[in-house]
Amino acid sequence: MSGFEANSHRHQLILMPSGRRGLVEPGTSLLDATRQLGVELESICGGRQTCGKCLVAPEFGHFPKHNLTSKAEHLSAPAAGEQAYARKHGLDLSRERLACATHIQGDVLLHIPDSSLARKQVIRKAAGSHTVEVRPAMQIVYVEVPPAVLGGRADWPRLQAALAEQWDLRNLSLDHHLLAAVQPALRAAGGAVTVTIWQGREVVRIEPGYVESLYGLAVDMGSTTLAAHLCDLRTGEVLATETLMNPQVRYGEDLISRISYAADPQGMKRLHHAIIRALDDLAAGAAQVAGLAAHEITDVVLVGNTVMHHLALGINPVEIGHLPFALATDEALDLRARDLGLKAIHSGARVHILPCIAGYVGADNAAVLLAEYPSLSDGVTLIIDIGTNAEILLCAAGRILSASSPTGPAFEGAQITHGQRAAAGAIERVRITAQGVRYKVIGDARWSDELPEGESLRPTGICGSGIIEAVAELYTAGIIGRDGRFQPLQDGNGRPGEFLIAPSQDSAAGQAIVITQKDIRAIQLAKAALYAGVRLLMDRLGIEAVDHIRLAGAFGSYIDPLYAMRIGLIPDCDPDQVTAVGNAAGDGARIALLNSEQRRAIQHLVRRVEYVETAAEARFQDYFVDALHLPELPALTTIGGEG
Amino acid sequence: MSGFEANSHRHQLILMPSGRRGLVEPGTSLLDATRQLGVELESICGGRQTCGKCLVAPEFGHFPKHNLTSKAEHLSAPAAGEQAYARKHGLDLSRERLACATHIQGDVLLHIPDSSLARKQVIRKAAGSHTVEVRPAMQIVYVEVPPAVLGGRADWPRLQAALAEQWDLRNLSLDHHLLAAVQPALRAAGGAVTVTIWQGREVVRIEPGYVESLYGLAVDMGSTTLAAHLCDLRTGEVLATETLMNPQVRYGEDLISRISYAADPQGMKRLHHAIIRALDDLAAGAAQVAGLAAHEITDVVLVGNTVMHHLALGINPVEIGHLPFALATDEALDLRARDLGLKAIHSGARVHILPCIAGYVGADNAAVLLAEYPSLSDGVTLIIDIGTNAEILLCAAGRILSASSPTGPAFEGAQITHGQRAAAGAIERVRITAQGVRYKVIGDARWSDELPEGESLRPTGICGSGIIEAVAELYTAGIIGRDGRFQPLQDGNGRPGEFLIAPSQDSAAGQAIVITQKDIRAIQLAKAALYAGVRLLMDRLGIEAVDHIRLAGAFGSYIDPLYAMRIGLIPDCDPDQVTAVGNAAGDGARIALLNSEQRRAIQHLVRRVEYVETAAEARFQDYFVDALHLPELPALTTIGGEG
Repeated sequence: MSGFEANSHRHQLILMPSGRRGLVEPGTSLLDATRQLGVELESICGGRQTCGKCLVAPEFGHFPKHNLTSKAEHLSAPAAGEQAYARKHGLDLSRERLACATHIQGDVLLHIPDSSLARKQVIRKAAGSHTVEVRPAMQIVYVEVPPAVLGGRADWPRLQAALAEQWDLRNLSLDHHLLAAVQPALRAAGGAVTVTIWQGREVVRIEPGYVESLYGLAVDMGSTTLAAHLCDLRTGEVLATETLMNPQVRYGEDLISRISYAADPQGMKRLHHAIIRALDDLAAGAAQVAGLAAHEITDVVLVGNTVMHHLALGINPVEIGHLPFALATDEALDLRARDLGLKAIHSGARVHILPCIAGYVGADNAAVLLAEYPSLSDGVTLIIDIGTNAEILLCAAGRILSASSPTGPAFEGAQITHGQRAAAGAIERVRITAQGVRYKVIGDARWSDELPEGESLRPTGICGSGIIEAVAELYTAGIIGRDGRFQPLQDGNGRPGEFLIAPSQDSAAGQAIVITQKDIRAIQLAKAALYAGVRLLMDRLGIEAVDHIRLAGAFGSYIDPLYAMRIGLIPDCDPDQVTAVGNAAGDGARIALLNSEQRRAIQHLVRRVEYVETAAEARFQDYFVDALHLPELPALTTIGGEG
Repeated sequence: MSGFEANSHRHQLILMPSGRRGLVEPGTSLLDATRQLGVELESICGGRQTCGKCLVAPEFGHFPKHNLTSKAEHLSAPAAGEQAYARKHGLDLSRERLACATHIQGDVLLHIPDSSLARKQVIRKAAGSHTVEVRPAMQIVYVEVPPAVLGGRADWPRLQAALAEQWDLRNLSLDHHLLAAVQPALRAAGGAVTVTIWQGREVVRIEPGYVESLYGLAVDMGSTTLAAHLCDLRTGEVLATETLMNPQVRYGEDLISRISYAADPQGMKRLHHAIIRALDDLAAGAAQVAGLAAHEITDVVLVGNTVMHHLALGINPVEIGHLPFALATDEALDLRARDLGLKAIHSGARVHILPCIAGYVGADNAAVLLAEYPSLSDGVTLIIDIGTNAEILLCAAGRILSASSPTGPAFEGAQITHGQRAAAGAIERVRITAQGVRYKVIGDARWSDELPEGESLRPTGICGSGIIEAVAELYTAGIIGRDGRFQPLQDGNGRPGEFLIAPSQDSAAGQAIVITQKDIRAIQLAKAALYAGVRLLMDRLGIEAVDHIRLAGAFGSYIDPLYAMRIGLIPDCDPDQVTAVGNAAGDGARIALLNSEQRRAIQHLVRRVEYVETAAEARFQDYFVDALHLPELPALTTIGGEG
């Protein structure tokens, strides 16, 4: 058949808003025709005109720009099934049609609403936002299985055959847990079932009749806080966000004490059960907020630091506690939720765990990489995620370097006299001028010296960003020296060896909030550790400056980059190029939940990471000692203004 | 490189007793060289000269027949490792060498002892015996993993890499249950572990150091009896055979009553738990007999009728109880033993379940086919497995026809007044002559009329073969007619409507053992059902006679083919071509346990079976009614003699 003959028999189809165009055979359904042009429409019912997911809006008239005349009679008239659907759902068939039920009889211009696209996109809003296609590991399909006949095949093979025939899904296996569920599900609705399939490979849920429910949970297991996003896996929408204190805290505040606690088998069991029960609680809580049943959740993505990773998996983390910090596994894992002990969610649900990078660089940092890597700009980008340790990623020219710096929890407010987490009531901004001290707390836009007489901000403590600003201001004001010590003459605001930020009558607890010499020392140690790690990676790349800095985590969201640079927490960089990217680990977990190709992508990316073990590098100690001092002040010391 | 040049540098190697020969590169180890010639030697330690599995016996001298001179100096001298092994194990290195440690330096003739062959063969002794290669689904390999290093990969990926490097085993996954076991196992013996691998795909067991244990269990789950063979998966040897009464009997003697019992969810749960606990007990019992720990069992093959199959899997068999007898699944299944609830065996053990053929033709019949099909002779072969139902296979010209006949349990002695299973004490042979009745019991070689005065065989009852002989003899003697009724004039031996076989003073229970009119009727119904099923399949093939008959199961082992033909139980056939094949279902299970390729083979074979549903065939009823009568007696009625 020559090209001309072929074309003369086929019809032009133009899809808006993309403008894609192509020729399709007469009689092709709009569902198939759009697919031929590379646009996948949503469809659950498989063309049975019941789900209404594939709605399209034909436009009629002459379109000179496209050199095409689209007419109503170029589409097949609505048949009984489509008319019934339109009546039931109030659809105006002159404006919208079911693509599965409408066939092409001539040239047509078609508008495809976003809601009908099978591969929805979610925009990740952050530095250099990028889009993520919604392409989850789970899919649901509706299928009708012919009844059992005497001497015929068993029910599961007939369901398999129906899935192959109606959806081209082949070689599917069955979660053995469902063996007992196949027959009741098939009998309940005359052979009509909705089947949930994992990775195009395994049937994990069978429900009678037509069902649309498809939900997943992305969880970032922090040492202190567990945070979960409950997502609609069909739209990518976040339906609920739930956080919970990590119940393991009662067995040990920090990771090292939890590793010690796990040395006893009973302790290990308690830590494991605590996190598993908490994950169940998170799922149940998020489902309640979203108005779902928790057992509607069929997919889970977990990220966390290596200790949380091992404890959740029931692996004793004892070896992470000493050299050479060996992990049991650093590979991505696919498990059944029930094998992990999860009970609240669906019994066939799956759990995907992101890979780890090194002994102290866990799946949470892999998630940060997954969230940030696709939007990196040219040049050198430094990504810092500060929790109890600081995980550092340095990306340039296709290389990714990683290190973990033992900053300790000072930036999170721990081990600071009046330190606290970044939460409402915490002092987050501090200014020291000739007129005295002023500050701001989280949750209030006013400065402490802008209040009416007799009112105060009633601070509860001071969080990481507040401490950093306090140290920078004390240094700029000459109250402390480069070595961090209070200068003898300036020691006046407060008792000896401390500096008063908020007097007792202003604070929530009725206790003065001060910065002590010990606090300044803790910040110096933490910032020196972080800086030394960054320097080590810069050395490895042979560079002296970075072009972009991304600060991940809660700490990164509150910190003022100028102050961070002033105390030497981060290397010098154009302040406009320092951005807070929020909970990048949680975002990465959500990306992996919504798109299974991204799970594979991060597995490959992680193995490209060049990990630099700070403990093994002699220069780390040198850099650390050098960085204990505060940087030399520039000639002019004007910082920030109103912050 | 020309052929001549290549050959001039290589050495001749001849392997006896196979006589295989070939050229190998100088310096090749005998382990590699034999492999190049297609002979796989056993090796667990991977050439570390510790397991001694690869022993070979070089023979030196001139071998004119082979045109080869084999000299001692054509092999490398024993090095320190091999010498150490020889000292420790009393090996004479002038006669035997470790193939892994010995290298070729000239032409050699090598004798390979059977015990060194990796693929051992087990001969199945039965009609047309055939050999089965020992090639189990599980393999064990010893591997040494280098220690963890700072900044290096985690332990599981390093173990993976070592398995790939040392054994060419790639893309292995890990049973997630072992995640917590990897590090302790690696640390316990300096990185040396023995790993058990399922189907070359998944690591299911990791043990510190060097271990040889590899055991499996093949189980035939009968409605009444559970029978298990514990096998050494490296040699194929049966180490123990254990049987157990099916504990489900207490919830229902026959399958239909168990299906009724399962209608209640609690009943279903009880039936499932009963069979699972019994499987654990079987494993523990067999292991004890073999002197092993039950947790050394890592592989299990299960066969059974469809109801047992479903109950073991926790699937409610309710649909097997009514038309169209739909199974939940008829496919072969691979499960983890722990997911099935098994606790006695290894926690990483696997369970393979053979496929089913139809609603009433289960995995046990697939096992019969697996055991018998490879040894079929030319012509038409009928295979009958008689349990509570009779499963019939008719094989001819590459076609396999199958049917299930509802014989009921009469052939097993049930529903017979003094019936019992074929066991010691049961009357198995009966003769009726002018002199009176004589009989034999299982476990005694003497006839009842050969005993000293005052002694008796003390029969406990009468088993299937005894009843059939009794009926045949009653008929031949004219005591019953073609319709099975006692002839009025002959009704004399015993009370009216019964025939005395053993008087009360001779029996074990002190109660006369008789055959009643009801018993004869039960045998007529059973044999008519069986015959009708066979006829139906013969019709389907368009044949009037069969060439070979194989009788499987306990019943088949005791029955005299001539008597079976006399009452019309089986079609006429040359008596020499009627053979008892014993517990073919158990044999098939053992074949599947020892050879994983046979598991695939039976999956394909089963789908070729043409199943004929007797319930759907109108002619079945006609044949059944016709077959209720006993066959016409031939002119001369001499049967058996001494039997």
